Amino acid sequence: MDEPLLIERRPLPIDGRLGQQLAFLIEVDRLKTVLRASPLAAVDRRENDAEHSWHLALMVAVLAEYADEPVDVGHTIRLVVVHDLIEIYAGDTPLYDDKLRESQVERELAAAERLFGLLPDDQAIEFRALWDEFEARETPEARFAKAVDRLEPNLLNWMAGGGTWKTPGVTTNTVLTRTAHIGEASKTLGDAMATLIDSARHNGWIAAGQQGGTGPE
Amino acid sequence: MDEPLLIERRPLPIDGRLGQQLAFLIEVDRLKTVLRASPLAAVDRRENDAEHSWHLALMVAVLAEYADEPVDVGHTIRLVVVHDLIEIYAGDTPLYDDKLRESQVERELAAAERLFGLLPDDQAIEFRALWDEFEARETPEARFAKAVDRLEPNLLNWMAGGGTWKTPGVTTNTVLTRTAHIGEASKTLGDAMATLIDSARHNGWIAAGQQGGTGPE
Repeated sequence: MDEPLLIERRPLPIDGRLGQQLAFLIEVDRLKTVLRASPLAAVDRRENDAEHSWHLALMVAVLAEYADEPVDVGHTIRLVVVHDLIEIYAGDTPLYDDKLRESQVERELAAAERLFGLLPDDQAIEFRALWDEFEARETPEARFAKAVDRLEPNLLNWMAGGGTWKTPGVTTNTVLTRTAHIGEASKTLGDAMATLIDSARHNGWIAAGQQGGTGPE
Repeated sequence: MDEPLLIERRPLPIDGRLGQQLAFLIEVDRLKTVLRASPLAAVDRRENDAEHSWHLALMVAVLAEYADEPVDVGHTIRLVVVHDLIEIYAGDTPLYDDKLRESQVERELAAAERLFGLLPDDQAIEFRALWDEFEARETPEARFAKAVDRLEPNLLNWMAGGGTWKTPGVTTNTVLTRTAHIGEASKTLGDAMATLIDSARHNGWIAAGQQGGTGPE
């Protein structure tokens, strides 16, 4: 987190407000190098955060009709485009990694300070607010954004015939708990997720777990 | 282009409209495997189309204030999220590859038919229209989307100290011509691009070309 900014390698001959914005837009190139636990469907490698963020944007555009509360599609897409940026410095925290999840909040707050602080003050506030909105899940747009954020890696797990569902200790119960945000934003997508989990358990891709247990959030 | 859909490897236990939408959303995972000519700034490898599309979405959100005509930011982001999808079947056509550019239109039209045809009819029309809008560059949103599509790889070239600017035959004249769409949507960003080109030529990262020549579009 203390390493120099990318822009310091080849400073741009542009300063002022636009110079700050371009420095930020170059620094975020790092998101393409933050690996997630999820396997791609198209080839045998893990997904990175930039690819994931793009995939969520398209999922929002295609699936917004299933949101139980009306959502502003453009705003929801902005939330998902921004939601993982802080992982540039904080790293990815896999959905099924309890140990890393303990230190997640602290790491991510420090990362947000540094990254959004590259922008001009008004935009630092604006983009930080988008991230806060996503995390708080208090608006219909944030709830739907979080729902697709949970749905996407599980679709990839399906296509891999297991993927991160095969993390030691994970059972259908864990997966049901960690994907509960989907049904909270969309009954249709929540039902589809439940169908997927049931079939995946039937196929041996998720270990059977006690139905009705609570499991960690 | 005739290979089976990804979804055929592991059909989902979900049919109807949502089944079609999820099949499309899984097929587009392939965009993460379409390599562009551009080098990343963060690490030494080429960029893929999904990463590029995400980067454009964020650039639109940060730079929209420089559009010479007012733009709907949410709609502009939708355009860039969708604009490269057809490359899943048509492949990427590098900005400085004249030979591939000759067959570009035909390859892309066939790809659009196949890919958008996976969606339910109403969405096939909707998403095809977004792609057509981007390509036609007749709305302020499409013009600004195309401008950032041209700006992004040139920022990466700057960070690489050359990148695709070093394609044989490319001179400052070629780069000026191929980036003209930037200034047509935003005087500020067009001026910044001209400054970059001038400095890059000065640094020996772009070969000097005849100013005022026309060069291919």
